Amino acid sequence: MLEYEQFEEKTIKRKEIYHGAIIDVALDDVQLPDGNHAKRELVFHPGGVGIIAFDEQDRLLLVKQFRKPLEKVILEIPAGKIDPGESQTPERTAARELEEETGYRAEKLQHLTSMYLSPGFANEIMHIYHATHLKQVANPLAQDEDEVLELYALTFEEAKQAIIDQLICDAKTIYAIQYWELLIKGK
Amino acid sequence: MLEYEQFEEKTIKRKEIYHGAIIDVALDDVQLPDGNHAKRELVFHPGGVGIIAFDEQDRLLLVKQFRKPLEKVILEIPAGKIDPGESQTPERTAARELEEETGYRAEKLQHLTSMYLSPGFANEIMHIYHATHLKQVANPLAQDEDEVLELYALTFEEAKQAIIDQLICDAKTIYAIQYWELLIKGK
Repeated sequence: MLEYEQFEEKTIKRKEIYHGAIIDVALDDVQLPDGNHAKRELVFHPGGVGIIAFDEQDRLLLVKQFRKPLEKVILEIPAGKIDPGESQTPERTAARELEEETGYRAEKLQHLTSMYLSPGFANEIMHIYHATHLKQVANPLAQDEDEVLELYALTFEEAKQAIIDQLICDAKTIYAIQYWELLIKGK
Repeated sequence: MLEYEQFEEKTIKRKEIYHGAIIDVALDDVQLPDGNHAKRELVFHPGGVGIIAFDEQDRLLLVKQFRKPLEKVILEIPAGKIDPGESQTPERTAARELEEETGYRAEKLQHLTSMYLSPGFANEIMHIYHATHLKQVANPLAQDEDEVLELYALTFEEAKQAIIDQLICDAKTIYAIQYWELLIKGK
């Protein structure tokens, strides 16, 4: 078994390339364990949350939205970024995003997993929660001004079909469908 | 139900920020469906593959490697980028990466899913294959020069423990463990 030192890539020089509203980009010159140098392109991101929540009829809540990097509209579980400035826990972000995007408030948020999405170049982490004991809110928090969202509630069979149709096509939502399938099989 | 036009964000102006070896970064000024403008930070990535493969004792093949964005060593399923220049299919990339990283060649590669990892800012897609009918290769393809990898084979219980220990902590590998659990429950 190799030791940590036999893996570690030490930053020799960092070039800051971009400081944005959401992401920062840097180019590192690293020293490999064998002494050679290599370049590493890095994206820094504040991380986000995704929420698995079911309505009264056991349908999964999903939001349809346009994703500029893909130039298409896709169906995802409710999700959002952790505001870097705010001193909030991922759980509070999850509660807020669920209410903003679906109009539901959850009494309970169970943390399921936290996963790095693209560890090769980005440090973005996604915390996933299962929200239960939902109540529809009379005057929910407003959605973000620059987002157009449409709320959906899908049965398990409809969700599987949405994967085939490539409407559901992102990692956190595919995780959610697998989690759902395991819940069903565990019953 | 909203129409596509009610979601679409049209690029009014694109500012190219960085053209790298692996990623490109751009800042778009977009027009929202309501006529207002917004900024979108975008990362373009050639996409990659991940391979789920089991050894003769039904243990999952994993590679340990240092991930610079996280500044830590993690355990992942074998994976790699699609070389943008090469005219190869994701399936060929999967066959090559499996051999380079594990020393195994697969007779069969079954496509399981393709998922966008961070659709909010990146177009990176990950194609996941289940490799079967493995054979150890006498002289496997060499690993990438700037990568230090250590091969592991874990039982299901060991893999679950590795998630708890946060050694397994990335989306494609957590997908793989869920897939494995569904395989086991389906038996």
